Amino acid sequence: MTQAPARPHRVVIVGAGFGGLEAAFGLKGAPVEITLIDRRNHHLFQPLLYQVATASLATSEIAWPIRYLLRDRPEVTTLFANVGGVDAANKRVLLDDGGSVPYDTLILATGARHAYFGHDEWEPFAPGLKTLEDATTLRRRILVAFERAERETDPEVRAALLTFVVIGAGPTGVEMAGTIADLARDTLPRDFRHIDTRMARVVLIEAGPRVLPAFPDDLSAYAQRALESLGVEVVLGQPVTECTADGVVYGGNKLAARTIVWAAGVRASRAAEWLGAPADRAQRLQVEPDLTVPGHPEIFAVGDTVTIKGPDGKQVPGIAPAAKQEGRYAAALIKARLNGETLPPFRYKHAGNLAQIGKRLAVIDFGWMKLRGALAWWIWGIAHIYFLIGLRNRIAVALNWLWIHARNQRAARLITQGSSKVAQ
Amino acid sequence: MTQAPARPHRVVIVGAGFGGLEAAFGLKGAPVEITLIDRRNHHLFQPLLYQVATASLATSEIAWPIRYLLRDRPEVTTLFANVGGVDAANKRVLLDDGGSVPYDTLILATGARHAYFGHDEWEPFAPGLKTLEDATTLRRRILVAFERAERETDPEVRAALLTFVVIGAGPTGVEMAGTIADLARDTLPRDFRHIDTRMARVVLIEAGPRVLPAFPDDLSAYAQRALESLGVEVVLGQPVTECTADGVVYGGNKLAARTIVWAAGVRASRAAEWLGAPADRAQRLQVEPDLTVPGHPEIFAVGDTVTIKGPDGKQVPGIAPAAKQEGRYAAALIKARLNGETLPPFRYKHAGNLAQIGKRLAVIDFGWMKLRGALAWWIWGIAHIYFLIGLRNRIAVALNWLWIHARNQRAARLITQGSSKVAQ
Repeated sequence: MTQAPARPHRVVIVGAGFGGLEAAFGLKGAPVEITLIDRRNHHLFQPLLYQVATASLATSEIAWPIRYLLRDRPEVTTLFANVGGVDAANKRVLLDDGGSVPYDTLILATGARHAYFGHDEWEPFAPGLKTLEDATTLRRRILVAFERAERETDPEVRAALLTFVVIGAGPTGVEMAGTIADLARDTLPRDFRHIDTRMARVVLIEAGPRVLPAFPDDLSAYAQRALESLGVEVVLGQPVTECTADGVVYGGNKLAARTIVWAAGVRASRAAEWLGAPADRAQRLQVEPDLTVPGHPEIFAVGDTVTIKGPDGKQVPGIAPAAKQEGRYAAALIKARLNGETLPPFRYKHAGNLAQIGKRLAVIDFGWMKLRGALAWWIWGIAHIYFLIGLRNRIAVALNWLWIHARNQRAARLITQGSSKVAQ
Repeated sequence: MTQAPARPHRVVIVGAGFGGLEAAFGLKGAPVEITLIDRRNHHLFQPLLYQVATASLATSEIAWPIRYLLRDRPEVTTLFANVGGVDAANKRVLLDDGGSVPYDTLILATGARHAYFGHDEWEPFAPGLKTLEDATTLRRRILVAFERAERETDPEVRAALLTFVVIGAGPTGVEMAGTIADLARDTLPRDFRHIDTRMARVVLIEAGPRVLPAFPDDLSAYAQRALESLGVEVVLGQPVTECTADGVVYGGNKLAARTIVWAAGVRASRAAEWLGAPADRAQRLQVEPDLTVPGHPEIFAVGDTVTIKGPDGKQVPGIAPAAKQEGRYAAALIKARLNGETLPPFRYKHAGNLAQIGKRLAVIDFGWMKLRGALAWWIWGIAHIYFLIGLRNRIAVALNWLWIHARNQRAARLITQGSSKVAQ
C-alpha cells in the first residue's frame, strides 16, 4: 500500500432486518465505521409476525431495539431515519429529512412490502402483514369482527362478519388461516353469548394448484388435509379478482366476508428505483454473483430486495435464512477486500422450509428429510425459539405457547389503535 | 312476595375497570342477568400503566379481554360498545350506534380521564396516561426524543430533546419521573453514540408544596430525596402556566422541553352529565351513602366517577382499592335488595398508599405503619404481582422486572404507531 488510510472504511447499511443486521454482526472486528439506518427502531422477527396478528404473542416478544443489539459495538452508529434515495455518483445515502450519509461501501437490505399486482385499491380491505402495525391492525380487525358479530341481529351480516378470507397459501397464508381457525374453535367459544364462534368460516384462497407451493407435493397435500381438519376451507386454482368492503370475488363467485388477509404477494423495496438498476417484475434488484449491483462493486444488496439464483438454478427464496446468509457473505467480502483479497461468488445453502399448521402440527422439508405432524411442530417450535434473540424473549414466547396449548388462551387479545372508532 | 318475577332482574354495568368488574364478580350467584358494557375489549391494570409508557412492560401484560374474565358466567353478556347517555326515565342505557339496553338496576363505573383545568389546548403537547394508547403514545414520544437528540447537531435543540417534564407529583407523576430517569441513566447509555443519555434532564413540577401529597410529610420528603438521588429535578409550589410544542412555563420561567407528561389532574367521565345529576368541580357525581344517585335508588355509581366521603371525613381517593370496594358494595346491596333486605351505608376501608420511586425504592403508608426504601419496593412489587389476574401475567411481569433489575434492560422499547411520520 502506498499510504495508510486517513480514516476507517465507511460502511452504510440500510435496513436492520435479517440481512442488514447479519451484515453488521459479520463486520465485527473489521477496521470499519458502520452506520446502520432503519426507519423503525426495532428489528422484527417476521416469521412469527402472524402470531401477533392472531393474538398469540405480544409485539415486544418478537421485536428488539436495534441499538440494543449493537450496544457493544462502538464503531456502529444506528440512525433512526427514512432513506429517500441513493446518490451513487457521490456515494451518499439520502435521507428524507434532507440530510445524507457518505459511504465507501453500501449494503442495501431494504426488504419487501406486500403487493397487490396492480390492485393497490384492495389494500384497505385486504391488509397484508409485514410490520408490527400491520399485525396489530389485523389483530384488531379479527377481534372486532367477532365483537360486531356478537351484537349483529341480521343473519347475513353476521355470517359475513364471521367469515375470514385469507388470500394466498404460502407459509404466511397457511399459518394465518390455521391460527384464525384455532382462535375461533378453541380460544373464543366460551367468551361469547349470542354467537357460536366455532361456526366461523375460514376460507383460504390460492391461485395456484396447491397450498405451500414451495414444499414437495405430499407435504402440500398433508398440509391441506390438516387445514381442513381444523375447519379451514381450502380453495385452489382460483385467483381473487376483486376485494371490497363486502368480501371477495373468485372464479365468478362472490363470498361475503368482512375480514380479508392478504398473503398473496410481495414487491421489493424501492432500492432498484433509487439506483436506476435492472430489476425483475417484483422490483427485485438483479445482482452479480457476489451480491453487488452491476457497475457498482461498492454497493451490495441482500435479502428480499434482490433476485439471485441458487446453486440449483432456482431463485433463492425470500426467507430469513437466505437474507442472513447474504448479509454474512457481504460482510465477509468487505473484510476480504480490506485485506486486498476476494471471495468466490455467493452460494446459497438451503436449510429447509417450515410451516406451522394450527397450534399442534407443522410440515418441514429439509430436502434430505421430510417431516409432518406433531413431531414437526416440536422441531418448528424449538427452531423458532432458538432463533429468537435473548433469553427473556425465549422464555416469554415459550410461556405463551405453553398457555395456548394447555389452556387455549392467547396472551394478547387486545383491540388497540382506533378501537373507539371501529367499535361503532 | 305476591308474585314470582317473570324474568331475572336486569343489571347493566357500564365500564369494566376495577369498580365495574368487581361489581360483576360480586353478583355471582345472584338471580340476575348482567350486561357489562365497555368501549374497550380489555380490562386495564392502570396502576402499572406508567410501566408501559416507560417501556418496562408490554401492553398485554397489564390488560385482559373482558369477556375472558367472565367466560364462566353465562348470565353475563359483555358488549363492546360506546355509551352515549342514560334515559333514566325509561331505564335504558343509550348506545352511540343508536341501540339501547334496558336495565332494572344500573351501575355506572365509567372512570375518569386526565384533565387540563380549562387548558385543553395543552393536551397535544402534554399527553396524559389513562389508556393503553396513551401509554404507547408516551412511550413513542420518550423514545423518539432520544432518537432525535442522537441526530441533532444544534446544542439548544438537543438539550430540549433531552429534557423531560412531568407535571404533577402524585403517584403517577413520581413513578413516571423516576422511571424516565432510570431509563436514561441505566438502560440507554451504551446504546447511543452522539449523546450521553445520562445527561438527560427529568424535571418534576408540582403546584403544591410537596411530592406525593396524599402521603405523610416524612414520606414525601423521603420520596423527594430519593427522586433527586436518581437525578430528577423536583420543582415545588409552581403551577405550570403554559404548555407548548417548545416546553413549559412555570413561575415565570420558560423551560425548553420536547417531551411533557401530564399527571396533574383528572376529570370524571360524563356520567353526571348523562343523568343531569349534581357533581363536583371535577364532574364527579355526588352519591348517597349507599352509592346510589340522588332520586335514583336503582342507579349506582362507583369508582373515579363519584365523589364520596370516607369515615375519616376525607374524600375517598381515586385509587383501585376504593373502586373495588365500591363495586363490591353495589353488588352486595343489589343482592340484599333482591332478598327484600338492605345494608348499612358504604364504608370505605383505606388499606394504604403505595408509590414506586425508580426501580429499587418505594414508599408505603399503611396508616399503622410507614415503610420506605428497598423493603418497601419488595412489598410494592409483591402486592402488584398479587393483584394482577392470572398466573401467566404474573410470571411475565416478574420476568420483566427481573430483567430490569439484573440487566437494566426493558422489554418493550418499541416505537410503534405513526413512527415513520415522527421519524422525520
